[in-house]
Amino acid sequence: MSTDTLNKDILRGGQFLVKETSCEDIFTLEDLSEEQKMMRESTKEFVDRELWAHWERFEKKDYAYTEETMRKAGELGLLSVAVPESYGGMGMGFVSTMLVCDYISGATGSFSTAFGAHTGIGTMPITLYGTEEQKQKYVPKLASGEWFGAYCLTEPGAGSDANSGKTKAVLSKDGKHYSISGQKMWISNAGFCNLFIVFARIEDDKNITGFIVENDPDNGITLGDEEKKLGIHSSSTRQVFFSETKVPVENMLSERGNGFKIAMNALNVGRIKLAAACLEAQRRVINEATKYANERIQFKTPIINFGAIKAKIADMATNAYVDEAACYRAAKNIEDRIAIREAEGNSHQDAELKGVEEYAIECSILKVAVSEHVQHTTDEGIQIFGGMGFSADTPMESAWRDARISRIYEGTNEINRMLAVGMLVKKAMKGHVDLLGPATAVGEELMGIPSFDTPDFSELFAEEKDLVARLKKVFLMVAGSAVQKFGPSLEEHQMLLMSASDILIQIYLSESAILRTEKNAKRFGEESQSTQIAMSKLYLFRAVDIINQKGKEAIVSFVEGDEQRMMLMGLKRFTKYTNQPNVVALRTQIADKVAADNGYTFD
Amino acid sequence: MSTDTLNKDILRGGQFLVKETSCEDIFTLEDLSEEQKMMRESTKEFVDRELWAHWERFEKKDYAYTEETMRKAGELGLLSVAVPESYGGMGMGFVSTMLVCDYISGATGSFSTAFGAHTGIGTMPITLYGTEEQKQKYVPKLASGEWFGAYCLTEPGAGSDANSGKTKAVLSKDGKHYSISGQKMWISNAGFCNLFIVFARIEDDKNITGFIVENDPDNGITLGDEEKKLGIHSSSTRQVFFSETKVPVENMLSERGNGFKIAMNALNVGRIKLAAACLEAQRRVINEATKYANERIQFKTPIINFGAIKAKIADMATNAYVDEAACYRAAKNIEDRIAIREAEGNSHQDAELKGVEEYAIECSILKVAVSEHVQHTTDEGIQIFGGMGFSADTPMESAWRDARISRIYEGTNEINRMLAVGMLVKKAMKGHVDLLGPATAVGEELMGIPSFDTPDFSELFAEEKDLVARLKKVFLMVAGSAVQKFGPSLEEHQMLLMSASDILIQIYLSESAILRTEKNAKRFGEESQSTQIAMSKLYLFRAVDIINQKGKEAIVSFVEGDEQRMMLMGLKRFTKYTNQPNVVALRTQIADKVAADNGYTFD
Ligand SMILES: Cc1cc2nc3c(=O)[nH]c(=O)nc-3n(C[C@H](O)[C@H](O)[C@H](O)COP(=O)(O)OP(=O)(O)OC[C@H]3O[C@@H](n4cnc5c(N)ncnc54)[C@H](O)[C@@H]3O)c2cc1C
Ligand SMILES: Cc1cc2nc3c(=O)[nH]c(=O)nc-3n(C[C@H](O)[C@H](O)[C@H](O)COP(=O)(O)OP(=O)(O)OC[C@H]3O[C@@H](n4cnc5c(N)ncnc54)[C@H](O)[C@@H]3O)c2cc1C
Repeated sequence: MSTDTLNKDILRGGQFLVKETSCEDIFTLEDLSEEQKMMRESTKEFVDRELWAHWERFEKKDYAYTEETMRKAGELGLLSVAVPESYGGMGMGFVSTMLVCDYISGATGSFSTAFGAHTGIGTMPITLYGTEEQKQKYVPKLASGEWFGAYCLTEPGAGSDANSGKTKAVLSKDGKHYSISGQKMWISNAGFCNLFIVFARIEDDKNITGFIVENDPDNGITLGDEEKKLGIHSSSTRQVFFSETKVPVENMLSERGNGFKIAMNALNVGRIKLAAACLEAQRRVINEATKYANERIQFKTPIINFGAIKAKIADMATNAYVDEAACYRAAKNIEDRIAIREAEGNSHQDAELKGVEEYAIECSILKVAVSEHVQHTTDEGIQIFGGMGFSADTPMESAWRDARISRIYEGTNEINRMLAVGMLVKKAMKGHVDLLGPATAVGEELMGIPSFDTPDFSELFAEEKDLVARLKKVFLMVAGSAVQKFGPSLEEHQMLLMSASDILIQIYLSESAILRTEKNAKRFGEESQSTQIAMSKLYLFRAVDIINQKGKEAIVSFVEGDEQRMMLMGLKRFTKYTNQPNVVALRTQIADKVAADNGYTFD
Repeated sequence: MSTDTLNKDILRGGQFLVKETSCEDIFTLEDLSEEQKMMRESTKEFVDRELWAHWERFEKKDYAYTEETMRKAGELGLLSVAVPESYGGMGMGFVSTMLVCDYISGATGSFSTAFGAHTGIGTMPITLYGTEEQKQKYVPKLASGEWFGAYCLTEPGAGSDANSGKTKAVLSKDGKHYSISGQKMWISNAGFCNLFIVFARIEDDKNITGFIVENDPDNGITLGDEEKKLGIHSSSTRQVFFSETKVPVENMLSERGNGFKIAMNALNVGRIKLAAACLEAQRRVINEATKYANERIQFKTPIINFGAIKAKIADMATNAYVDEAACYRAAKNIEDRIAIREAEGNSHQDAELKGVEEYAIECSILKVAVSEHVQHTTDEGIQIFGGMGFSADTPMESAWRDARISRIYEGTNEINRMLAVGMLVKKAMKGHVDLLGPATAVGEELMGIPSFDTPDFSELFAEEKDLVARLKKVFLMVAGSAVQKFGPSLEEHQMLLMSASDILIQIYLSESAILRTEKNAKRFGEESQSTQIAMSKLYLFRAVDIINQKGKEAIVSFVEGDEQRMMLMGLKRFTKYTNQPNVVALRTQIADKVAADNGYTFD
């Protein structure tokens, strides 16, 4: 890699909150290389040909078809993008991996889940934590789609509290194998996988341990029936029962007691990939909804002409655009961080591990935000279709059902919300991100007299960037004060944490969108970005609303009297527009463009 | 009826916005008569026994079971509550009718839809508009459940634009019958009904005409296949094709060209009943979710102990409580208005028609608000169940899917939002509600200097009621200014109308909750109402947020410069709390009570 990237003082995870990012320093979808664009095209073609065209088969719970298409994806190399070349993979970077997760998610959540469970949590623990032998033995098969993987963490009694599982691993007397017994639940790909990553407890260890377990019915492995699910109907999800299943000791993943760490790191990557996998799902829904709204006539006019419909289309497109900006920004940060670590002499494995771990906060932020956006977009998709949206004959109803899972797995959105803030606070404590300094500065600013100068906001996004900088102060003010007040017991104040988290999320997303658009406006000209400018402004306006609301909920609940008044005053000051944007005009402009293009064309 | 009720200067529809309502003047669930309570109990028993216990049959699209249970409901008299005694009904008042719609909605949306389509839009057009002969001939059969009814308004090309249908009715040469031809779509109960209310156009009439059409396959009536739907799986929904179907002239409903009016009035009643039918659905979900959260252990503690879960339970319970308050308030207004009209010498038919029409605004408000609340509650229900919420083996997933229809039928929520404001503006134009005076007063107040007195808010709800009065000013300010600016072309400014409508909705709901609680606190003691007080305050807090947000979106988009600044200042002034409520404490208090009761106990 170029020393350029190396020398760049790239942001550490969570630092976006206290450092200004220059638009040149963020990666956007518009920066894709030719190779990446080709990758994207072939992914899209695959989706159109194999998935979208046979969409009803997924709805009809045709698990065999899921397996068949997964096999085809393997033949096309789509399963091996993230796998190093030395293990039969394409060894492409993190951005390329994200691209495939993104564009493969367009048609049905069933495929996307199968794909994610296999390439992400099913394969990655081995590439990230496996010994050389384990990697040589298993990864090439998984990368080619000859074998499929599944990930067995959850148990009936251990979901969010993943480390509390009861599955046991008992070492044999001769010390040659472990005997695993226990019940795993909600295992994606269970119905057709060849290999399980299984987490089990050895003796009374505090933490669980990971194992690679080959699927062999003669080895005490049985499956429950297919779960009857709300959505992702052709994703195979079954219970897996292990009864004295023998696993050679050399199949332990990493060290004894390291399982919880593996599980958490696998989930970090899983989270950002899941966010990516909610992007094309959004675009497709926007496309279908726009086409329908352009064609459907009521009151003698295509319904797209109604402001009520335009508002929906505008918000849907805006969310997708902003989500793209945030996802690819973080993806490239991770890629760069991995490269830096490698250049520093770390193994690829170590580098990748640390690279992703570094941005765990961003991964949680993205998981929450994008999974909620895809739900909102599919919901509006149904509404735009009216009665037809309620019909399984149109693609909206399955999209809505499929979207629902993303707020539950890879850590529920509640867990991820709390993690995002929790990890940030921990980083601050450890001195990895200096929150204390900036938070103190905000505190002092609150005491001081605000400037009454009228700032010069003539340049593109001058006011918006100023506002984003102030939104960060809201977070610092609220979280800083909460940490001071509650110390380590802050984690018990979940309602407060949730509010803080929502503020954090909105900051990251709105900033990402503005930077993406700014970068593109600089190189391609402002005119070419007029809709994107509108979307960035619209999103920020909505973000400010959310931050106002969540900030207020927090402030009125945990501080009183003068302190409360001061913080409410700060909230007001930090969320103030000098020039209010005309949001009706913004929404109209955005919707008109999407309508004219008959779909989403900003990726 | 007592002259008491008659003399009471009960509010006209829409007047809640400009008149203060005393808590003694609203009807609440706590005012139910013994007879009504018995009605409620037997409805609940029926639901437990026949519906809830066989809930999977509905999920399995067992349409025959829907029909069977409808028949049983008929035997119990549940189909005839609203039908006058002279036609075999129980002739109970509007509140009782609402009660049954409410409590029958607990188990599955399939039954609720079948029930609503039959008793509401399938039967009511005849009781409201039928001739004596038509009523004698059809209503007793429908009231007993010997026959079932369906309502054929929608066509492939005519949904929201219901008056644009292409179905034709051609008078025979001998003048004895009409021949009806056309295609109707999305017809609930089509699969087992004996009678259709059909809307068709005679010649090139501007408006459609209603007909009572007996179901007879030998008379050119054929059905499409059952629609494959997202939810309400055992509600029979099919296309109905009429091909030269002969209908005797005496089966015309009301007069030629009156069909659109009939359709709209049927929908008015349908809307408030639909709102009621989203109440028990909410309560059941809250009960199930609370039970689960009390039992489900993660991190060594029942998940109900987590603030993130408490916040959900508190919001869910609050919405249900507020919705009850608003629904029964309006229901009794309608009942009283009918009684007044009857006492004035109008026929029951006329009185009922006018009574409901009077509160069409409230009916639209309720339809939108309650259908969105039930969606939110079912969504949180899934989330509280975590992965199990995604499983069809728990009652959350079907509840979520079933809830989705309520935002689409009986007029989409977009249409109803626009209607609510549109009708209000029309009423003002006609002088039925004086908006101009109060709007002008608000305008003057904006110019004046605000009072800096510290008001005495020591009494229960003193501040909240003051705030509600100011929220009304927000609506008057925004809508008043919009009417002035756009005049009749206001209806083209849908985004603005949507914002105004959201403000209106929040005012009605938050006021209703406060009045309900105030009334009960006065008679049963404040202590007994402590949770209800918390819910009323919490809802208001959230309502203020929404009003702030929607108000701002409107103001920044349609006024500029000084006027904008003045209105934003007004918005701030009108939404200001003197004493901020501690919303974390409110939510915790509410959730703790629901958790302790293991469910919703406020009805
Ligand atoms: C379709 C599907 C596929 C899946 N695939 C896999 C797979 O391949 N492999 C695998 O191992 N797992 C898989 N899972 C399991 C999934 O990861 C879990 O469902 C998820 O982690 C939530 O756990 P739970 O279902 O036990 O919910 P719970 O943990 O019981 O959560 C219930 C509720 O409590 C909340 N909650 C829990 N703890 C806290 C807390 N400390 N603070 C605040 N709120 C809290 C949650 O947010 C949620 O709202 C899958 C699940 C589904 C539904
Ligand atoms: C399960 C089910 C049961 C039903 N049962 C019955 C029944 O028993 N009898 C019957 O007659 N009908 C029934 N319907 C039809 C139902 O009433 C219609 O679906 C509904 O009125 C919406 O009409 P549509 O589907 O044509 O949507 P459209 O009218 O095409 O609406 C599409 C979108 O455009 C929006 N839109 C339309 N016009 C405007 C406007 N002027 N301004 C802004 N936005 C607008 C809508 O809000 C919606 O978002 C049923 C529908 C379903 C799904």
